[in-house]
Amino acid sequence: MADQAFVTLATNDSYARGAMVLGKSLRNHNTSKKLVVLIGPQVSEPCQAVLKRIYDELKVVDVLDSGDTAHLAMMKRPDLGVTFTKLHCWTLTHYTKCVFMDADTMVVSNIDELFDREELSAAPDPGWPDCFNSGVFVFRPSVETHGKLLAFCTEHGSFDGGDQGVLNGFFSDWATADISKHLPFIYNLSSIAIYTYLPAFKQYGGNAKVVHFLGKTKPWSYTFDPKAKRISGNVHEAATHPSFLLDWWTLYAGSIVPMLHQQYGDQPFHSG
Amino acid sequence: MADQAFVTLATNDSYARGAMVLGKSLRNHNTSKKLVVLIGPQVSEPCQAVLKRIYDELKVVDVLDSGDTAHLAMMKRPDLGVTFTKLHCWTLTHYTKCVFMDADTMVVSNIDELFDREELSAAPDPGWPDCFNSGVFVFRPSVETHGKLLAFCTEHGSFDGGDQGVLNGFFSDWATADISKHLPFIYNLSSIAIYTYLPAFKQYGGNAKVVHFLGKTKPWSYTFDPKAKRISGNVHEAATHPSFLLDWWTLYAGSIVPMLHQQYGDQPFHSG
Ligand SMILES: O=c1ccn([C@@H]2O[C@H](COP(=O)(O)OP(=O)(O)O)[C@@H](O)[C@H]2O)c(=O)[nH]1
Ligand SMILES: O=c1ccn([C@@H]2O[C@H](COP(=O)(O)OP(=O)(O)O)[C@@H](O)[C@H]2O)c(=O)[nH]1
Ligand SMILES: [Mn+2]
Ligand SMILES: [Mn+2]
Repeated sequence: MADQAFVTLATNDSYARGAMVLGKSLRNHNTSKKLVVLIGPQVSEPCQAVLKRIYDELKVVDVLDSGDTAHLAMMKRPDLGVTFTKLHCWTLTHYTKCVFMDADTMVVSNIDELFDREELSAAPDPGWPDCFNSGVFVFRPSVETHGKLLAFCTEHGSFDGGDQGVLNGFFSDWATADISKHLPFIYNLSSIAIYTYLPAFKQYGGNAKVVHFLGKTKPWSYTFDPKAKRISGNVHEAATHPSFLLDWWTLYAGSIVPMLHQQYGDQPFHSG
Repeated sequence: MADQAFVTLATNDSYARGAMVLGKSLRNHNTSKKLVVLIGPQVSEPCQAVLKRIYDELKVVDVLDSGDTAHLAMMKRPDLGVTFTKLHCWTLTHYTKCVFMDADTMVVSNIDELFDREELSAAPDPGWPDCFNSGVFVFRPSVETHGKLLAFCTEHGSFDGGDQGVLNGFFSDWATADISKHLPFIYNLSSIAIYTYLPAFKQYGGNAKVVHFLGKTKPWSYTFDPKAKRISGNVHEAATHPSFLLDWWTLYAGSIVPMLHQQYGDQPFHSG
């Protein structure tokens, strides 16, 4: 459907790599939706060019330069820079419904059925499960909602310093109001859950639909040996499930690196 | 109400100490419900005597000795001993509704409002939040349900080796069916959540109603200096929030130890 889209965000070249893998994973699983990537002005030309090959729409969002309410809001809360950029997704009003996905997520099957859900649908956060995790959520673009979100940010800030705190503060009845707005956890499966409650992962993890590499160490923080198909460094000590990490790198090395090479040409580029 | 009860379980003297603190915490917050403790045959006479002073009803459950379907079920799944004892709570049919609470929980306010909920109501498990945590749950005693649970156990076992796996397997639509059966997380607040997502704890933890000392190290595993009102050992390295642990020990040292002393008389007893 032309009026529905998956949306992600990358403010720099590292997260842009994540967005490339995410977009490619959605394409590989034959999504029928549009793909939109919001980028910050720091994303390099070659990365923008690769993103354009994968995404239908690339939109540069420079909150600092916008001169509008978003800019004013950010002057009052300069700590919330990336958050304001993420909230920008509500202005994509040429779509009637969207699914936002963090650039550190990857789909492992088609998830177009998420568009049957209403705003704001999201999966519980492992850790504090009455909060939703803001790495995957269904929303309806609306200038009005965007304005209210900015006002909320300015007035209340974010209890965790990021978008998850703002969105949970704003959509504060998520935990108690409507079960259909609780996405199954397999739509936002983070490695942290695997290590906290391994038997549940073994029981239900096989149905995973979206993997979320939540936390400090992102897939692109590792290095990968494409010949041996192995990640270097002690993956078992890290917070990421080895097989998901390998899936990410297999897609990155197989499909994204060749596109990056074409863009960078002879220029050296950092492959991981 | 005489036909509603809080129910807990202790199969040995360590968990019995937990049950004593839990029962006392419920009394201190003026519950109007009955208090029931299921105990295993290993719980010592003096501990039973103290439990009797706090609880309205003490019931010895010896699944091994029962000669009924529970015994038969356990012969097939000897690994699930404590689980079968816990499931025994469904046979308390002289109550129409009950709230089960693990012996390693403690209430920090009156929670009688939980009896407005229906079977099976429980809070999400931090870790795998589409599972409920079986440390606090609302249920309706029923011989029929008890029989079905035993049959389920025998046939499917428990994916995590304990009662939580069995109960989540049996009440498998909890995550998706009815939001009113999702107890707010503050009714089963485990320390693990505090360390996984500290900003959320700072934001919402002040409303805690039930603290759950989930995991390997229980409050009674520490030692306490009642004069200095301090826990010995490195509490910060442990998985338990220091102030909740101190609350537990304050209640234990102040109200339970004197009762234990009366029962044990001159006999030495291990105070922590
Ligand atoms: O410097 C940054 C930090 C974050 N993000 C975007 O914001 C999302 C949320 O941040 P992150 O995934 O790092 O947070 P986590 O999921 O680990 O809490 C990312 O996936 C990106 O889409 C970004 O573009 N640049
Ligand atoms: O040896 C045992 C183990 C468990 N229990 C009971 O079963 C509950 C669940 O076990 P536990 O609290 O240790 O599990 P956790 O909450 O840490 O997963 C306890 O609170 C007790 O009520 C018991 O009586 N004896
Ligand atoms: Mn993320
Ligand atoms: Mn417990």
